[in-house]
Amino acid sequence: MSNQERLLVNLAEVVGCCEPLVREPLSAAQSVELARVFKALGDPVRLRLLSLIASHEGGEACVCDLTGAFELSGPTISHHLKVLREAGLITGERRGTWVYYRVAPQVLQQLSDVLIPASAPVAEETSV
Amino acid sequence: MSNQERLLVNLAEVVGCCEPLVREPLSAAQSVELARVFKALGDPVRLRLLSLIASHEGGEACVCDLTGAFELSGPTISHHLKVLREAGLITGERRGTWVYYRVAPQVLQQLSDVLIPASAPVAEETSV
Repeated sequence: MSNQERLLVNLAEVVGCCEPLVREPLSAAQSVELARVFKALGDPVRLRLLSLIASHEGGEACVCDLTGAFELSGPTISHHLKVLREAGLITGERRGTWVYYRVAPQVLQQLSDVLIPASAPVAEETSV
Repeated sequence: MSNQERLLVNLAEVVGCCEPLVREPLSAAQSVELARVFKALGDPVRLRLLSLIASHEGGEACVCDLTGAFELSGPTISHHLKVLREAGLITGERRGTWVYYRVAPQVLQQLSDVLIPASAPVAEETSV
């Protein structure tokens, strides 16, 4: 099982797949799992990498496609890609010389769902 | 203008209010602004605080309502609340002895929208 598959399983298990965090208190376990992924997003370079990969032709990109957008060394870019990959936000597939990265849409969707500010009206008790 | 209002303005300005990050590459400025907010979410205690506040009766909570859920000191809880507040994720209003916190639904909505894995079909050019 790849890191990304494991992450999906973990996220689905702990957040009950997508219950908005405003609806009921997160458990300690849920919050640890979610915080790990948000922490990976909490860096400007990683956010840009994620965005560049997703919007690249065909929805995938190799390091060779990404380095031009940054004044950073190849190893630094690779480090950030590793963090994104370990958080389950991207997957990588080696083809020939390069590893090609794609975003993991299910993980983004789960995070997006968790943040929805659920504003379903609360039924008020009427005391007669 | 409060921190939260400033944040909303900033977020709206830099992310064009809610363009999914998978649709086109984030600029450096957009990524800095978004990373700041995701970084605030990248901590289990802060995620639980956010969730506890949002799901508390009336959608608001004071420190006195929150400390029981953690084995942490009051000042530590207050520090985390300050980080959430500075990131624009919650607002605080002093009433009497206590500051009452609420989540900022617009900020959550913007973050949620940014993460949507937009999968609108790309129109393919047909070469005749």
